[in-house]
Amino acid sequence: MTKIAFINSRYKNFNDATIHIEDRGFQFADSVYEVISFFNKNLIDLKLHFLRLRYSLNELDIQYNFTDEKLTKIFWKLIRFNSLKSGIIYLQITRGVQPRSHAYKHKIKPTVVIYTQKKTFNIPGNKFTGVNVITHEDLRWSRKDIKTVNLLPNILIENLAHKKNAYTAILIKNNKITEGNHSNIWIVKNNNIFTHPINIDILKGVTRTTLISIIKKCGFKLIEKNFTKKQLYNSDEIFLTSSTGLITPILKVDSKLINKGKIGNITIQLAILYFKLILK
Amino acid sequence: MTKIAFINSRYKNFNDATIHIEDRGFQFADSVYEVISFFNKNLIDLKLHFLRLRYSLNELDIQYNFTDEKLTKIFWKLIRFNSLKSGIIYLQITRGVQPRSHAYKHKIKPTVVIYTQKKTFNIPGNKFTGVNVITHEDLRWSRKDIKTVNLLPNILIENLAHKKNAYTAILIKNNKITEGNHSNIWIVKNNNIFTHPINIDILKGVTRTTLISIIKKCGFKLIEKNFTKKQLYNSDEIFLTSSTGLITPILKVDSKLINKGKIGNITIQLAILYFKLILK
Repeated sequence: MTKIAFINSRYKNFNDATIHIEDRGFQFADSVYEVISFFNKNLIDLKLHFLRLRYSLNELDIQYNFTDEKLTKIFWKLIRFNSLKSGIIYLQITRGVQPRSHAYKHKIKPTVVIYTQKKTFNIPGNKFTGVNVITHEDLRWSRKDIKTVNLLPNILIENLAHKKNAYTAILIKNNKITEGNHSNIWIVKNNNIFTHPINIDILKGVTRTTLISIIKKCGFKLIEKNFTKKQLYNSDEIFLTSSTGLITPILKVDSKLINKGKIGNITIQLAILYFKLILK
Repeated sequence: MTKIAFINSRYKNFNDATIHIEDRGFQFADSVYEVISFFNKNLIDLKLHFLRLRYSLNELDIQYNFTDEKLTKIFWKLIRFNSLKSGIIYLQITRGVQPRSHAYKHKIKPTVVIYTQKKTFNIPGNKFTGVNVITHEDLRWSRKDIKTVNLLPNILIENLAHKKNAYTAILIKNNKITEGNHSNIWIVKNNNIFTHPINIDILKGVTRTTLISIIKKCGFKLIEKNFTKKQLYNSDEIFLTSSTGLITPILKVDSKLINKGKIGNITIQLAILYFKLILK
């Protein structure tokens, strides 16, 4: 079966899905994106993705106007065309095409790229697994709050993590843990849950937002405050959240085992509640 | 006349010059580039560009092997095909195409994009002009020594500069001037010439390297040391160097006039020597 992608208002064979070499997404990373998971006929946390997409576009002054309904229709068409039951939607909006110049023109037409990838998810039950991670200095630019494709530092760090047989890396800036390389990070200590507060040093994760509402409903104490590598090492439990990894337990950080290398109870409780919420 | 570009070993009409949406240059800024000026049948500082290209590829572990001769032949073919007398060569190498994933595969084929743009240059003589600049905080990632397309911070800063009717911005990190937004910066004070030393905070500019050899031959004192905004404001002369801007005098920084808003004598001397060297 031919895979189908959506490029600038047209559905195309995936192999023919191309953009021009003077697209600013290609030449300058002048582009935002979202990745949305779907399974069981649900597009997970879709409204939060649209909210964040508008935030990113606005922060970069990219003039792309859309309705949630129109993009949602395209997503479902692609899911049908590609006969998928579970996977992800990848959506990338660039500022558009213009003769190469750092400064951008204000009336160019944004480029829209949307396609699907098949994926199975790490869901509580028989196969809910944890991962090992490393820590690494945060090499990224100043505006981590915008979801852009300015991702080269993340690429280099992710590859270092894989070389060390780790799933990903946890980033450290000025001796404080900021977030995962493509996820938010949470620690549990004495039944309190800690995560980095929202500012320009981290991305406001969609799964993070949903999980906060669950944590508050459960009555756990949530403390949005940054923490050190030492506190990370001494946590009772650690987990990551992201739109594609959902809730991912961490069993080891660098050479330090967490909770004796087992998934923690609060992590499991939260993961079960999260999946109940998104599957209903 | 149809404009011609070179994409992955083929010459193509510029309008058909495209790359796939899963090219890592498009999705992750996982890509390096060079911009080479040419006029009077010269490709300016070509060997230095090839040296830096190899450095960038090596730092990112992009497995693209080339000979200087092969790329040079393509450059001249494009210049002929596009009937140009003066302009720039834009060369971009990405890691290649693979299903989207932060970590990269090691045996993918790099994407090669080369094309020309017409350009006239700011050369000493009747029309040698200076520019106004602003200062701005350096928002970029940690590795400014690699010439990558991870350029979104530069884009945002350049647009702020243009909004203030400035040519570009001078970047400040930890209260020190690092470099221009797409150039190296030099100040003259009491006949001494200062520029930031080579480290990961700046790009090792090709024009910078050539100019250093000229400065040393002339007997001016060159001090490779970083300096503050206050020192910048109090300079006798300021100029930028870059492969496309060549030597660009600065007449005003923020609201501070430099040398009463006139191009300085040492700047003119160096520019004349630089152009003699590259035109011979």
